[in-house]
Amino acid sequence: MKNMMEIAGVKVVALIAKCGSPLYVYDEAQIEAQIEAYQNHFVSPMFETEVIYASKAFTCQALLDKLIQYDLSLDVVSGGELYVASKGKFNPQRIYFHGNNKTKEELRQALTYQVKTIVVDNVYEVDELINMSNELKTKVHVLIRLNPKVEAHTHEYIMTANADSKFGISVDLKDDIYGMITQINNSEYVCFDGFHSHIGSQIFERQGFVEAIHKMCQFINHTNIALDMKVKVLNIGGGFGVTYTSEDKPTPTPLMCKTLIEAIQNNVEKYDLQLEKVCMEPGRSIVAEAGYTLYEVGFIKQTKNKQFAFINGGMADNIRPALYGAKYHCEIANKMNETKTQVYDIAGKCCESGDIIIHEAHLPKVESSDILAVYSTGAYGSSMASNYNRINRLGVVFVKDGNARMVVKPETYEQQIQNDCDEEITL
Amino acid sequence: MKNMMEIAGVKVVALIAKCGSPLYVYDEAQIEAQIEAYQNHFVSPMFETEVIYASKAFTCQALLDKLIQYDLSLDVVSGGELYVASKGKFNPQRIYFHGNNKTKEELRQALTYQVKTIVVDNVYEVDELINMSNELKTKVHVLIRLNPKVEAHTHEYIMTANADSKFGISVDLKDDIYGMITQINNSEYVCFDGFHSHIGSQIFERQGFVEAIHKMCQFINHTNIALDMKVKVLNIGGGFGVTYTSEDKPTPTPLMCKTLIEAIQNNVEKYDLQLEKVCMEPGRSIVAEAGYTLYEVGFIKQTKNKQFAFINGGMADNIRPALYGAKYHCEIANKMNETKTQVYDIAGKCCESGDIIIHEAHLPKVESSDILAVYSTGAYGSSMASNYNRINRLGVVFVKDGNARMVVKPETYEQQIQNDCDEEITL
Repeated sequence: MKNMMEIAGVKVVALIAKCGSPLYVYDEAQIEAQIEAYQNHFVSPMFETEVIYASKAFTCQALLDKLIQYDLSLDVVSGGELYVASKGKFNPQRIYFHGNNKTKEELRQALTYQVKTIVVDNVYEVDELINMSNELKTKVHVLIRLNPKVEAHTHEYIMTANADSKFGISVDLKDDIYGMITQINNSEYVCFDGFHSHIGSQIFERQGFVEAIHKMCQFINHTNIALDMKVKVLNIGGGFGVTYTSEDKPTPTPLMCKTLIEAIQNNVEKYDLQLEKVCMEPGRSIVAEAGYTLYEVGFIKQTKNKQFAFINGGMADNIRPALYGAKYHCEIANKMNETKTQVYDIAGKCCESGDIIIHEAHLPKVESSDILAVYSTGAYGSSMASNYNRINRLGVVFVKDGNARMVVKPETYEQQIQNDCDEEITL
Repeated sequence: MKNMMEIAGVKVVALIAKCGSPLYVYDEAQIEAQIEAYQNHFVSPMFETEVIYASKAFTCQALLDKLIQYDLSLDVVSGGELYVASKGKFNPQRIYFHGNNKTKEELRQALTYQVKTIVVDNVYEVDELINMSNELKTKVHVLIRLNPKVEAHTHEYIMTANADSKFGISVDLKDDIYGMITQINNSEYVCFDGFHSHIGSQIFERQGFVEAIHKMCQFINHTNIALDMKVKVLNIGGGFGVTYTSEDKPTPTPLMCKTLIEAIQNNVEKYDLQLEKVCMEPGRSIVAEAGYTLYEVGFIKQTKNKQFAFINGGMADNIRPALYGAKYHCEIANKMNETKTQVYDIAGKCCESGDIIIHEAHLPKVESSDILAVYSTGAYGSSMASNYNRINRLGVVFVKDGNARMVVKPETYEQQIQNDCDEEITL
């Protein structure tokens, strides 16, 4: 191994010298490899398949360009994500619009943009959508989000299919769901395609998915019989885990895909389902491991029991350690070959004790001006970033084959106050 | 009570009809009353006193104008906060610059802006500061942040003075601290004024502060003797609790100030200290209770054991419930007189199960289009807001005497992607 870290052939220290720090860096080839892994392995001779990127994990124009190039579909969860997709020239017929509380404005926006599929969360949304499609005379497809009541083993915040989840409709409420479908089938512009489920995030094991698939297919079978129809589409959501530290053992993507496909095929055969299409929605697992955050080390501090290395970023650019107790791996980018003799808490610069990015990182002796690289920060870093402590949000660089390009410029202080004003409101 | 909520004489429903929702609203008179409470009660015949607003809680130009009008000082913790203060025409001689990891650029910025006081966190920062003041030939005052090792009873993330806090220097390390003071005294441009401590945030009881004051004064006495000097300034920090829900019983500001002043006076007499000035740094307690977040209710959902009311905002505009388990009180702004017969979980619109702003809120029957007002959101709401799920950050309205003015415009989708680019980086 070289002593000086490289990402995709780009020397990290040189990149920071040019662009400043902190900085998010994405290895494009790693994103592409993950996309290809899904596209190559999530396939079946029995039904069409569709890989939908969950844009809440991370988006920018450069990423959208790549998704378009690789012919992925897109999952958006808000008017903002839809706006970004639309500005990014994403084909609206490849967009799925999610969310537990879409506003009237958002539903209107989705129909106006000709979004193909709305993933409906609840019965009131069906009413809204039918009314709005009638008003706008716009055709739209829907999936109904079901809660299959499968408890994935993950953080409670990102476990989305327990009995009292805010998302979807419990599979126990058959009559409500059949009522929704009938209502949709009787509408002029809304077309019922099938069902969606999503059991959580950062899930390592296959069992939860297999269980959810079984419950969903069972429900599709009941629906086919009860309503004398053929449900066409099953979307099994995402939530596939990634490696943040060596403690994480996610199922490799090809094996995960194979397991899911086999589970679906088995159920299709068992119940003689006539599924035309099966979809999945990876987000984190496409971008997380491809992303790195590069910081410069400032002061080192020894307290009674701890040694701190302070970095020039922290919870403003990565809220996950404070929010979920998320763990990360790091290296000193200019000391890759040095023996790891020391233990540091990597502390951010926010005025808050909770701003510790990594507890007990094993590293070589760290000095001021060293470059610290935190691994697997490509998902929910940039997308959840704040200006806490008035810290500017970071720039984003894509690297590939020894070349680097800036795809999001670092925020400026000027931008932080651009909306300050003093305007009387006439009531 | 009127059935339709008013804030400072402004009808909430009319305000939302005009400005849209969600929206942060601040009652100016409430901010002013809190400032006056501190200014009137944090006084002593024995020393000068200074009330310093901790700007990380919330800033915008309109708030800075008010602080200037009321002659408060300002605590900044980053180059960004200093930039905002500077653009806001805040007198740099009234600014205290904090932070555990100020970068070289930030120290340079502080000296260039003629900031009066740097609150130094550690010994390396003293080196940096002396070097930089020599280079720039700029005079600057310092306080040294001590860790008095007082464990405040609060959330661990905001408990800042346990033995292994990332902040300050433990009072046990006397020789290190004396060494820093001597180094400063021997420098040409840096002037040692005294000590700073801050034991945590959202603290209700007085005992922790009294204990910290005692330890700090004891340390000042030792320093005076050891170095044959007279420490001039003691800054006791902030962290004064506020009422989020009826469970919270913070010490009223006048009583808190009286207790602190008496504790300091007693110690000054006991040790015959020659303190010229004593400072405090309230942030949250000046703005939190003056702030409200107004949301529109969307869908209502009944699950097995829960009833959800969905709002058109959530963890993107208020991360505190998810991050700290913070509790809030809410009312239906258009049903203030109706009997509270129902219990709801108030769920945000983010695609995340953790996006529950309030668990088990007692409310009248909630319907779609109701306006939900969450109380005491004036601190660490706007300042910690993100674009998670590409949700726009909210506008801010100040209300007073029946009048309303927009002081921060709502963010636009266009602004969210204004830094997207594709620029080759030459390495």
